Amino acid sequence: MNQFEVRPVGVVESALTDPAGAPKQADEGAPEATLAFDPGVLDALDGVRAGDRIIVLTWLDRARRDVLRVHPRDDVANPQRGVFSTRSADRPNPIGLHELEIVSIDGLRVRVRALEAVDGTPILDVKPVLVPATAR
Amino acid sequence: MNQFEVRPVGVVESALTDPAGAPKQADEGAPEATLAFDPGVLDALDGVRAGDRIIVLTWLDRARRDVLRVHPRDDVANPQRGVFSTRSADRPNPIGLHELEIVSIDGLRVRVRALEAVDGTPILDVKPVLVPATAR
Repeated sequence: MNQFEVRPVGVVESALTDPAGAPKQADEGAPEATLAFDPGVLDALDGVRAGDRIIVLTWLDRARRDVLRVHPRDDVANPQRGVFSTRSADRPNPIGLHELEIVSIDGLRVRVRALEAVDGTPILDVKPVLVPATAR
Repeated sequence: MNQFEVRPVGVVESALTDPAGAPKQADEGAPEATLAFDPGVLDALDGVRAGDRIIVLTWLDRARRDVLRVHPRDDVANPQRGVFSTRSADRPNPIGLHELEIVSIDGLRVRVRALEAVDGTPILDVKPVLVPATAR
């Protein structure tokens, strides 16, 4: 099957530097962080506003791509499961999915809470959180 | 900045074949579809069950990557906005995000509802929908 190339559009700036010490999920004590976008995608940010809830996709470049089964939450007491039934960073395509709130925006720099990705993580995409049609 | 290679782990099988005629979101009349996974990722599906709600990431290989601003919902009456504030398929990294329910599983074939991606769309990843820690 074809392969495709992802091109980062920015990078995470965070006080978190050690993947082993980072929270596993955003609601487990993750800090505020900054999404620093490349100048080339400035137009893509038009309409993104402070207070918005967004989904950020990242490339977890420290993850292992050859791992198909893991102990959930890295706890060997948990029986191994397939990575598609977990949020393990290790998976064939290590794309991180983060739902965040925008705190403030200054040009290409978007402040968000709360993000468990470590400093330097490449950003692939930003999408608005959708409200179901039934609630519009 | 570095680029990274995504490797599809399967493909969408759907009655939808025309992107122009496909629903824009799953809750706008999208049909059931089948996720047909490659044999090499069978172990990654361990623990994925009928009835689960999952997030599927796809590669929208018919999208344009050079588009940074769009008329939302392809309606020229809507003022142009940056793609990061919309769910447009056209965006620098055209990764589709779909929240689905698993209807049934037969080995490498996972039946889901409802999916707006067209037949042949490459699948990149599957993740469980997380329940917030506050609700655990």
